[in-house]
Amino acid sequence: MGEVFDNMREVYLGIDLGATKMLAVLMDEDGRILAKEKRPTLPERGPDDVIGRLIDLGQSLMNETFPGEQGLHAVRGIGVAVAGVIEPESGAVSLATNLGWKNVELGRRLMERFPCRVLIMNDANAAALGEWKFGEGAGSDDMIYISVSTGIGAGMVSGGRLILGSTHSAAELGHISIDPEGPPCFCGNRGCVEMYTAGHSIAQKAREAIHQHLPGSSDILALAGSDPDLVTAEHVAAAAKSGNVLAVRLLAEAGTALGRGLVTLVHLMNPEVVVLGGSVSKSGPPLFEPMLETVRRYGIPGLVGHVRFAESSLGEKAAAMGAAFWCREHQHSLTAV
Amino acid sequence: MGEVFDNMREVYLGIDLGATKMLAVLMDEDGRILAKEKRPTLPERGPDDVIGRLIDLGQSLMNETFPGEQGLHAVRGIGVAVAGVIEPESGAVSLATNLGWKNVELGRRLMERFPCRVLIMNDANAAALGEWKFGEGAGSDDMIYISVSTGIGAGMVSGGRLILGSTHSAAELGHISIDPEGPPCFCGNRGCVEMYTAGHSIAQKAREAIHQHLPGSSDILALAGSDPDLVTAEHVAAAAKSGNVLAVRLLAEAGTALGRGLVTLVHLMNPEVVVLGGSVSKSGPPLFEPMLETVRRYGIPGLVGHVRFAESSLGEKAAAMGAAFWCREHQHSLTAV
Repeated sequence: MGEVFDNMREVYLGIDLGATKMLAVLMDEDGRILAKEKRPTLPERGPDDVIGRLIDLGQSLMNETFPGEQGLHAVRGIGVAVAGVIEPESGAVSLATNLGWKNVELGRRLMERFPCRVLIMNDANAAALGEWKFGEGAGSDDMIYISVSTGIGAGMVSGGRLILGSTHSAAELGHISIDPEGPPCFCGNRGCVEMYTAGHSIAQKAREAIHQHLPGSSDILALAGSDPDLVTAEHVAAAAKSGNVLAVRLLAEAGTALGRGLVTLVHLMNPEVVVLGGSVSKSGPPLFEPMLETVRRYGIPGLVGHVRFAESSLGEKAAAMGAAFWCREHQHSLTAV
Repeated sequence: MGEVFDNMREVYLGIDLGATKMLAVLMDEDGRILAKEKRPTLPERGPDDVIGRLIDLGQSLMNETFPGEQGLHAVRGIGVAVAGVIEPESGAVSLATNLGWKNVELGRRLMERFPCRVLIMNDANAAALGEWKFGEGAGSDDMIYISVSTGIGAGMVSGGRLILGSTHSAAELGHISIDPEGPPCFCGNRGCVEMYTAGHSIAQKAREAIHQHLPGSSDILALAGSDPDLVTAEHVAAAAKSGNVLAVRLLAEAGTALGRGLVTLVHLMNPEVVVLGGSVSKSGPPLFEPMLETVRRYGIPGLVGHVRFAESSLGEKAAAMGAAFWCREHQHSLTAV
């Protein structure tokens, strides 16, 4: 083992802290993954418990890769991607709804434990950086990453730089309106992309169809064990794959709305590559074909015509790898993004 | 005069080439304007004639500022802002509809004449850079400039850098849809911001109102010398200022649509400052109040709440100053933006 790491100057730990799982990678400076592990988050146990187990997870990856205390010295930085609003500079998590966190000093807690650089960032930005450096966006300076899962997240790289915005809140793709007469969103806007395309919206529409006994709804209900409350976008995707007409329609509506949002995004950002990740993006053609049709139909040909649309190639590792990479790039001991 | 320029290391010439006028500034490296002149463009005389007079204008500013041939040596670069699609690298103007230009080698022609760096760029990007360095955006790294005149143009600075996009076509604010059921736009999209807010759209709606003899339309017609074909957005703005209800309504519709587009822009880019320029933006409160009301009503408070909205302080000089500044920043002998 000594041979492998003698020549290695720098190692980084990247962790994606989501509401259901925390996924950690130990990565060298060239993006090679030396170790990887996933554990349940169990946010119901509270921030202290979660952070304790996050530290255990990081320590465990170091221990299994390096003998004795060497891991602590080899690891130059720890980057954590969190689905939430991050406090620039302090590394605090201001608000992470899915974790139930408000003003949790995650960065400080990690710095107390590890003698290295610590960086906390938004998970969509982290996944965008991951795909840009190591995945489908590699080689392009103008890339947009979109995560469609329970909610919608996005990260934008333009001119080879991550777009952060003045308060590090850029790329709120989920909350751009595609219909001024659409339903009101909790954010204050109307007809937001998230109200049509996010996993929770697709599941909600499936539940409504079940309550109305629409044709095809019983198949979706059966996939959820006959409990409407357990219906998810994954059940809709599974039903669509077996040709269920209702499920196909629900995903087509979601894809069309996403396509509308993409036209706006492409007209404003002029990207070369758009990478789609997240659980709902695994729905495949029933989601993507209406999306692409909408993009081709409404987009300016010179702008949308040369965009390459790709599915995430890093999958669930994207955010952890991006957080590790960002940590490598940063000179500050603690910076939140 | 020798005293003034002895200590000056670098001088730049910036020219804004529009369909009606060409405006040139001779600027030192600190953004001080040493000379300024405006001449009619007369695009109907063709590209060769326009370029010849553009060269004369530049030469004239050099001659009046520097004795003899000194101007040619003092000027380190010439930046030209053009309302159109620019060919990156070559400095050619691929398409400038208002000038009637297609594939005009503007950059090459200027380089043949002047022994310095030449740079051709889009006029909205140039104006954005001008306002960012010398105007209302100074001091902020995250600024958006929007020009509302005959059409709509925009330029975005994020993290202290101009957003260009993969084919230098970013910031097409005029062609983002605010209504999926809106009227079809020539660009292929529906319900584009430009169809509601641009000067030509406001004028078109005023003409329609005149043809329908709507209450208040005769006042607008009178301002245009009783010729409906001569009605412009400026006439609508003038009527609104004197309280004409139809004119106030037309500008309110334009402002509301612009506000819708701004909500999208702010949610995606998270700017600190939004600067509004262009002739239609001089309409004042009848345009801006509905715009701001829409932004406050539909925007995410944490994102739109801290944005400062400002009117351009450089006015018609913004693009020429921005082009001169960009030329200073660039190391290449010819670069198109």
